[in-house]
Amino acid sequence: MPALDDAALDQLFRTARTHNGWLPQPVTDDELRAIYDLMKWAPTSANCSPARIVFVRTREGKERLRPALSPGNLDKTMAAPVTAIIGHDLAFYEKLPQLFPHTDARAWFAGKPAVIETTAFRNGSLQGAYLILAARALGLDCGPMSGFDNAMVDAEFFAGTSIRSNFLCNLGHGDPTKLFGRSPRLAFDEACRIA
Amino acid sequence: MPALDDAALDQLFRTARTHNGWLPQPVTDDELRAIYDLMKWAPTSANCSPARIVFVRTREGKERLRPALSPGNLDKTMAAPVTAIIGHDLAFYEKLPQLFPHTDARAWFAGKPAVIETTAFRNGSLQGAYLILAARALGLDCGPMSGFDNAMVDAEFFAGTSIRSNFLCNLGHGDPTKLFGRSPRLAFDEACRIA
Repeated sequence: MPALDDAALDQLFRTARTHNGWLPQPVTDDELRAIYDLMKWAPTSANCSPARIVFVRTREGKERLRPALSPGNLDKTMAAPVTAIIGHDLAFYEKLPQLFPHTDARAWFAGKPAVIETTAFRNGSLQGAYLILAARALGLDCGPMSGFDNAMVDAEFFAGTSIRSNFLCNLGHGDPTKLFGRSPRLAFDEACRIA
Repeated sequence: MPALDDAALDQLFRTARTHNGWLPQPVTDDELRAIYDLMKWAPTSANCSPARIVFVRTREGKERLRPALSPGNLDKTMAAPVTAIIGHDLAFYEKLPQLFPHTDARAWFAGKPAVIETTAFRNGSLQGAYLILAARALGLDCGPMSGFDNAMVDAEFFAGTSIRSNFLCNLGHGDPTKLFGRSPRLAFDEACRIA
């Protein structure tokens, strides 16, 4: 299996940036469905697939989000064509008979709140990363954020459910004139070793 | 920005699979460095970049990993060309003056263990997902796992450090004859809504 070409690696990783300003071009329902139809295939532990996503696009939806946003994330989020709320369902294991049908995987979690919490948060975060890279693969730009009040978002969007918010991700076509300078990354030897 | 072509979307998401058997083709140091040199660019909160990775490739390294592996993950992990231990550094914020130099981001975390733990786990998991998709983008196959004893891995590979293991990911060239049948995914309307 060959590597993707340089243009694809740039679009996914090397020249992709976290965007703060957005061009007026909208994001369609079909594009949101296409993001999900890619990200859903990427791996989670026992196929547990705990991510639950609200794509906030309407003016009314954005106004429900507004009070939870930290000041630095407010204007760009209100202006973004779509803001995805990436959450995870703490009752994810109830779907394991459907998602992992060849064994009783539900029993690995039922009644074990620490395992449930860790598994939902880890795998929901993986799926959030898959969402970011799926959106980029489809030609969209992303602006992920964790600067917001999770409890307020949960009360407004997930009341009465077992879903908890994880992070937010603005989606759209980024305005390159609003980018910040790129921050450095750790060198291989600062972050990795071969054993 | 156009979408990647169908072959690329297949390689990253749609036809990529979690592998259980491995062809004898090795994974080189250059390939491991290339994975990191892609994944490092993908976004983390305040560029905090908490992931710390051990690429276990030697026989000695694999033997140190062996006692921590759950029975179902043992043979395939011992046989894999490389097993990446994806961990996160709970002292990640000490590098923020380097990674996010334009403000005192270290102060957002120092002395706040709950915020540290959540931020390291969320963003380290995002980076683990970036590793999976970077490896696939470079033509490698992945076999991620959370079925192992984290405390044993931490004692063996991260003793005396502030690094904690998150999950493991086998890397190599997968043997397609050892794949399991693919499990179903949730439909868009089971996992997502537009608000």
